[in-house]
Amino acid sequence: MTRLAGCELCELAVSKVVDNDKFAVILADEPNYPGFARVIWKDHVREVSDLLDADRLLLNEAVWQLELAVREVMQPLKVNVASLGNVVPHLHWHVIPRYADDAHFPAPVWAQAVRATDAAVLDARRALLPRLAEAITRRFAKQ
Amino acid sequence: MTRLAGCELCELAVSKVVDNDKFAVILADEPNYPGFARVIWKDHVREVSDLLDADRLLLNEAVWQLELAVREVMQPLKVNVASLGNVVPHLHWHVIPRYADDAHFPAPVWAQAVRATDAAVLDARRALLPRLAEAITRRFAKQ
Repeated sequence: MTRLAGCELCELAVSKVVDNDKFAVILADEPNYPGFARVIWKDHVREVSDLLDADRLLLNEAVWQLELAVREVMQPLKVNVASLGNVVPHLHWHVIPRYADDAHFPAPVWAQAVRATDAAVLDARRALLPRLAEAITRRFAKQ
Repeated sequence: MTRLAGCELCELAVSKVVDNDKFAVILADEPNYPGFARVIWKDHVREVSDLLDADRLLLNEAVWQLELAVREVMQPLKVNVASLGNVVPHLHWHVIPRYADDAHFPAPVWAQAVRATDAAVLDARRALLPRLAEAITRRFAKQ
């Protein structure tokens, strides 16, 4: 396994919902986006297309299972899925539940914010996070 | 095949590099991002996780082949891959070659632009597009 000193994803020190030899799944700490989750590949790899075929399919399956868990629990209007990594070029995927009243909708979450979501709505979404963690754990236990 | 009247991706009327029963590959008309390409699923489906397993794997393979072609010809610093669809909720993937001198780097292309790329550099990248189309055609012919 390749490790890069100073890479924040090689040295990921946050709570993980799934943690195996190949990847971790975490709930992101994004106050405006409860349910924003990430799959982080363990090996310090730059691009999806740097992976061996079996690993690429494993990662794809993980992103798909995470999307299913996010849809099941968070009931978003839309799911956004992205692998960018310009700032931290260590392969990871964002899975983001989107709602008509979220801070950027319909723009991507990386655009300028256009509104503040009602605090009670955010609280209600945040209250779903334990169920989301359970749903992720359950889906990945089946793999 | 589901078609939605008024959906701009159901009624896609642009030149396609790949065009089969399941998906099309197009080069996006993004002046600041020569080599920006998309895979557009033909059926009017909202999310990756709405696809049957075989279709999901087929689409994943297409996005991967497109990423390989973009890397081969455009030689980007980083590739960004995303399925958003908030504005047009018809399943499609963006594959975007990124460079340190592009309009938004290292931010996502949907953030506020931070610079104008040198026109000669953009011209040189644009000059690669026929080779990119060839590389895509070749890779998808092998599938």
